Amino acid sequence: MTKMVVTPWEVSGDIDYEKLIKEFGTQHLTDELIKKLEKEAGSSHFMLRRKVFFSHRDLDVALKEYDEGKPIALYTGRGPSGKTHLGHMLPWVFTKYLQDALGANLYFQITDDEKFLCKPELSKEKTKTWAYDNALDFIALGFNPKKTFIIVDTDYAKTLYNMAIQIAKKVTASSAKAVFGFTNETNIGMMFWPAMQAAPCFLPSVLEKRNVRTLIPAAIDQDPYWRIARDVAPKLGYPKTTAIHSIFLPSLAGPGKMSTSVGQNTTIFTTDTPEQVEEKIMKYAFSGGRGSIKEHREKGGVPEVDVSYQWLRIMFEPDDKKLKEIYEDYKSGKMLTGELKAILIEKIQKFLENHKKERERARKNLDKFILKD
Amino acid sequence: MTKMVVTPWEVSGDIDYEKLIKEFGTQHLTDELIKKLEKEAGSSHFMLRRKVFFSHRDLDVALKEYDEGKPIALYTGRGPSGKTHLGHMLPWVFTKYLQDALGANLYFQITDDEKFLCKPELSKEKTKTWAYDNALDFIALGFNPKKTFIIVDTDYAKTLYNMAIQIAKKVTASSAKAVFGFTNETNIGMMFWPAMQAAPCFLPSVLEKRNVRTLIPAAIDQDPYWRIARDVAPKLGYPKTTAIHSIFLPSLAGPGKMSTSVGQNTTIFTTDTPEQVEEKIMKYAFSGGRGSIKEHREKGGVPEVDVSYQWLRIMFEPDDKKLKEIYEDYKSGKMLTGELKAILIEKIQKFLENHKKERERARKNLDKFILKD
Repeated sequence: MTKMVVTPWEVSGDIDYEKLIKEFGTQHLTDELIKKLEKEAGSSHFMLRRKVFFSHRDLDVALKEYDEGKPIALYTGRGPSGKTHLGHMLPWVFTKYLQDALGANLYFQITDDEKFLCKPELSKEKTKTWAYDNALDFIALGFNPKKTFIIVDTDYAKTLYNMAIQIAKKVTASSAKAVFGFTNETNIGMMFWPAMQAAPCFLPSVLEKRNVRTLIPAAIDQDPYWRIARDVAPKLGYPKTTAIHSIFLPSLAGPGKMSTSVGQNTTIFTTDTPEQVEEKIMKYAFSGGRGSIKEHREKGGVPEVDVSYQWLRIMFEPDDKKLKEIYEDYKSGKMLTGELKAILIEKIQKFLENHKKERERARKNLDKFILKD
Repeated sequence: MTKMVVTPWEVSGDIDYEKLIKEFGTQHLTDELIKKLEKEAGSSHFMLRRKVFFSHRDLDVALKEYDEGKPIALYTGRGPSGKTHLGHMLPWVFTKYLQDALGANLYFQITDDEKFLCKPELSKEKTKTWAYDNALDFIALGFNPKKTFIIVDTDYAKTLYNMAIQIAKKVTASSAKAVFGFTNETNIGMMFWPAMQAAPCFLPSVLEKRNVRTLIPAAIDQDPYWRIARDVAPKLGYPKTTAIHSIFLPSLAGPGKMSTSVGQNTTIFTTDTPEQVEEKIMKYAFSGGRGSIKEHREKGGVPEVDVSYQWLRIMFEPDDKKLKEIYEDYKSGKMLTGELKAILIEKIQKFLENHKKERERARKNLDKFILKD
């Protein structure tokens, strides 16, 4: 076991999601609450059924209000420090379901200022280039341009800064240090930055000129920002933001959040070729199989630790029945690791084939999505 | 003697300007350098001759470059937390001389975000209202609209923030604490804010698309901001900003910077009526006169501590000969305190009569001056 670290900038070690719920002070996403969400949404989603989304803050409040006809807006985002990989897309896939199901406006913040501020090696020009590149991956998922508003921080800085200073006035350096682990060596841009990330929690109320409660679908490492936003909300007269938290798509190498910084080979980018996908999964996907075919047939594989199986469960096999068959066949030893990997490879290749087409089409529609000051 | 405190937010106690030069690490404005400035400017200014401007950072560098035909820009500003008083106008009067004499572009930053962030009782709407109100007092001094650019922070936040994050990335919380006396109880907006104030040091280079060295005429309490800007300049590839520092216009009550927070009656606002001017000076202007007319005639007054005399010297009697006469007549006892005060009252009443007209005219021209993102 390696020590678990989960902050908005670092996720490492063996992740214990139960412990995170306790440490962060969030709530379990119960079966009862999932049913309520599915009822409001009018459909189910495999990421709910499989507890890929497992934790929340006041989702019940958001759903109750939605049921009463009150306005709700979705908010999620991306830190553009490089190419988009499949792990980044996980919450966006679920967000697409939520937008369609709830008919809600969606605000998508691309934090090029943050990545510039926290990565010594990245220039402002570079993070902006990544911002507009990453936006293509988001748009490619099919969001409704009439209801989806992309914020590139440095290009929407006037509106954001005007909201952020109202938040910042209520947050002391000491509190930012406690929540984000900042030190005296942190630069003053990063010290302020949580206020820029919290700003879109309240922007819908300003832009839509009515009280709008935000619901944030995002991986749980981003939760500290919503804590700040929730603390400040009543002081500024806005509804407290609510959140629904996902687990991380593990790295091909095994436990932990998939991260480009760990290695190019344990991450699959949206721009990878079919050959790269095949090679990375065949070579690097951590396997729950046995040391020999004979042993595997006798004892069976361990889907619980097998990354290929986990990727199918978390993101690439929506069909519960098919997933169950794969689970059982792999567990019994009927299915070999190579066969399991082949299933995943085909799924991802198909997904990316379509995604790349949509990604190119998105270039033309980019302007329709970008919010300007 | 009360302890001297000089920070961008507080000036109190008995101010020892020699000690400030040492503590801040600035340079004396020598007679030789004044001559150089007057030569470049093509004229003299009483505030130079009388050492109302007494300290600088690299003014010699700025003048040498100006002499070589390299571009220079002036930068000064205002923190809009209330009405403009005469003390605020002191550096602007000198800045007007510099702009005319050097033909330089002038950037004037009105920091409504700062005043909102550092004053718990001020709303964002209120500081913005003061920003545009205070701008009128500045414009009223007759600045050239073609060469003068007013920045209201919250209305120019996109450009400012984009520059400020580049500065902020190079400044640690620890360094901001050391320079500005911030603590862990300081809000994160203020922690970041020095980067917003430093941004206009480099903006001329961006807006004018060439390397432009800035020269900042301002009271010495603002110097800490330029220290940050100067540290960062070479790292960002901009010329180091330079500065020329003034003393403070003392409060009517005596030593220290004139400040609205000390009391409405020891401050003269640009909107005060002639009667208010008369009453405030007659009642509250600290006098260097003696206890009785008889004693005054015998021993003479003390112009060095007399606020009315000091105001004439610092701002309201540009004529050296007339000032000398007043000095000698008051010192010898020939001139009584009431007579000295009457001279100042008339000067200020005339100044404000004209200023109020110009201030109203400025409303129509405001748009010509305001920089927009």
